[in-house]
Amino acid sequence: MRAEVVGIGTEILLGQIANSNAQWISERLAEIGVDVLHHQAVGDNVDRIADVFRLALSRADVVIATGGLGPTQDDVTREALAVALGLEFARHPEIEDFLREKFRSLGRSMPDINLVQADVPVGCRYIMPERGTAPGLVCEHEGKRLYVVPGVPAEMREMMHGTILPELGELAGPSALVSRVLRATGIPESKVAELLDDLFRASTNPSVAYLASSGEVKVRLSAKAASRADADELIRPLADEVERRLGAAVFTTGDEELEQAVGRLLKAAGKRVACAESLTGGGVAKRLTQSPGSSDYFLGSAVCYSEEAKHSVLGVSEETLEGPGVVSEECAREMAAGARRIFDADVAVGLTGAAGPESHGGAPPGQVWVALDAEDAQEARGFRAPGDREQVMRWSEQAALDLLRRYLQDLLRA
Amino acid sequence: MRAEVVGIGTEILLGQIANSNAQWISERLAEIGVDVLHHQAVGDNVDRIADVFRLALSRADVVIATGGLGPTQDDVTREALAVALGLEFARHPEIEDFLREKFRSLGRSMPDINLVQADVPVGCRYIMPERGTAPGLVCEHEGKRLYVVPGVPAEMREMMHGTILPELGELAGPSALVSRVLRATGIPESKVAELLDDLFRASTNPSVAYLASSGEVKVRLSAKAASRADADELIRPLADEVERRLGAAVFTTGDEELEQAVGRLLKAAGKRVACAESLTGGGVAKRLTQSPGSSDYFLGSAVCYSEEAKHSVLGVSEETLEGPGVVSEECAREMAAGARRIFDADVAVGLTGAAGPESHGGAPPGQVWVALDAEDAQEARGFRAPGDREQVMRWSEQAALDLLRRYLQDLLRA
Repeated sequence: MRAEVVGIGTEILLGQIANSNAQWISERLAEIGVDVLHHQAVGDNVDRIADVFRLALSRADVVIATGGLGPTQDDVTREALAVALGLEFARHPEIEDFLREKFRSLGRSMPDINLVQADVPVGCRYIMPERGTAPGLVCEHEGKRLYVVPGVPAEMREMMHGTILPELGELAGPSALVSRVLRATGIPESKVAELLDDLFRASTNPSVAYLASSGEVKVRLSAKAASRADADELIRPLADEVERRLGAAVFTTGDEELEQAVGRLLKAAGKRVACAESLTGGGVAKRLTQSPGSSDYFLGSAVCYSEEAKHSVLGVSEETLEGPGVVSEECAREMAAGARRIFDADVAVGLTGAAGPESHGGAPPGQVWVALDAEDAQEARGFRAPGDREQVMRWSEQAALDLLRRYLQDLLRA
Repeated sequence: MRAEVVGIGTEILLGQIANSNAQWISERLAEIGVDVLHHQAVGDNVDRIADVFRLALSRADVVIATGGLGPTQDDVTREALAVALGLEFARHPEIEDFLREKFRSLGRSMPDINLVQADVPVGCRYIMPERGTAPGLVCEHEGKRLYVVPGVPAEMREMMHGTILPELGELAGPSALVSRVLRATGIPESKVAELLDDLFRASTNPSVAYLASSGEVKVRLSAKAASRADADELIRPLADEVERRLGAAVFTTGDEELEQAVGRLLKAAGKRVACAESLTGGGVAKRLTQSPGSSDYFLGSAVCYSEEAKHSVLGVSEETLEGPGVVSEECAREMAAGARRIFDADVAVGLTGAAGPESHGGAPPGQVWVALDAEDAQEARGFRAPGDREQVMRWSEQAALDLLRRYLQDLLRA
């Protein structure tokens, strides 16, 4: 089955927003084995949208379009649908009731302008919204199918998960593309490439691909087969082999971020963590608290940018501040120990360094020290992170989280 | 002049990468008054790329395509160009020399496979790369112009800035689109819409548009004129009027984030700030430390997730914790005062609340208190933030930063 993804909205063509819906939809379709052959984006113009619909329907079996379903004058996707497919619209009282109720529950009366969202092309289905007020539309046309959903990502995703992906999964029949991603950290991309080179060359189904970002390497294995179970079966031995070769560097074989893996391990160990951050400015704390339920294992972070705060809040010694300085192994270690003490934590990490672009405390931009402190372990790592300020911060966060992960997996000495 | 942006690469259609080049190019083209009417994305397939080129050239004056110029087998954009425009390629010795020299300077010998990058269609120009090894190509075809540049963002941008934007600026002639964005916070979108409704309806050049995100409303004014100066002249009175109507809610008329505006004001006032964060988990600190030089005004943040840490680190009283609880005006005020004390800051903000999805400390998800503490001002605000965990956090950060901004602009009592 061939699919095409259409983004509608002048703000996309002006570059004011990214067409992130296209990426998200494409990724989901790839997961269920639907081939996407084209993306198109077009502005809020009836004739041009209609042309884009016609072209997409001429070359794809399924078209998914996002945007232009709002109630205001610049939302013209409905009109374009009428032009492209020669459809008439009819008002649906049950959608009208739903809209009025939605506004009532928010304590507001519905502007008449919103009534247009109760209009559905004759002969087409609609998808009731949960979050928003715009129903999705499903039109069949000469054996092809066109889905039109709102451009607001959360509203689009709700309809993709609830209706479109299940329907397409059924249509696509017993054919599936399954991807598994292994994520590794604390290992350079070139080392991953070297370790996996023969697999990368030899294997086409599953295929092997890798993608590096600051402080992390993703290895993606994708297999196509008649069913998900068959594809899983193809992937399993290769995934095991990749995991074996990369060893302790692999922090997850599931779809989770490093901070989620750390949270999971903390929870399993019944341990509570604290941080002492300098160059990352709260970034480690921010990542550890992204997940609901993080209060089970996260106590707090002392973000101490100034030298005085490192001393007065975290208890970093004057000898360290005057001797090796704020960017040093000693400082990172004392910060970690200080965080463990003031938050009464089982384990703590400390981070200090020069994020750049200027040097800091006598250290060049990119120089970083991270340390871990627990009753049964003390550890520190120093390195020079590449890239700009943001990337140095990201590398530092990764290094501190990886230190935690290795401690929790009993790999620190490995 | 009408332009079209084409992204080439199967990884875009698989959703593995976002077509961020399309957004960036569109934004640059809008700035010089070139209208982008369509985006297309297509995979690494000769016939489909050729079709996409033909379609784009049939409806646009200028086409900018990115990707598929690498040396490996999956890079077929050159071949597609030959098919679509009926062109022959010829090897250019000066590019060959450049490539060999590039590899030599990296201490490597050039694989023969790279020689294909020295091939240029007969009758076309090329753009010499600085960063990468793939030259850009410039083909004229029946009065239209097609630029093909590498997909690596840095290499694409180098050619856009160095060659394409200057050429198109000249072609577009004395015509410019200028946008000015005013950003407001502490005001609901509906209130902005109400205050600006008549301007929105009456003005087409400059046009008025607004875009709301969690805790912020952007008002964008865009004017088209024969020159930048003329467009500026058109925008100025309208921008002044918008600013007058939105009053203290406008935090910037420049291109800066709320945290940058706060940083600028702190620097100007010679004041240093500290934070006490609970539900935002370090998010305010993270934002205040994004900019280089933030150590001039940012001292630190005590991220205290647990009740014990609020007491032991920040000195929140037991009466408050046992009485009104962790999500209360009192707690936010005591957190701010505690942060000001332990970091020895001129001004501090405290944030507490229930980020969700669960309720916390007896407060429902979304309930937030932010407070500011300075020698000459104490202030607190409570509200119920809409949305999911991430949005609640964002709203909370915005509210705390806005409290700081209003304090620094002497608007707290306004």
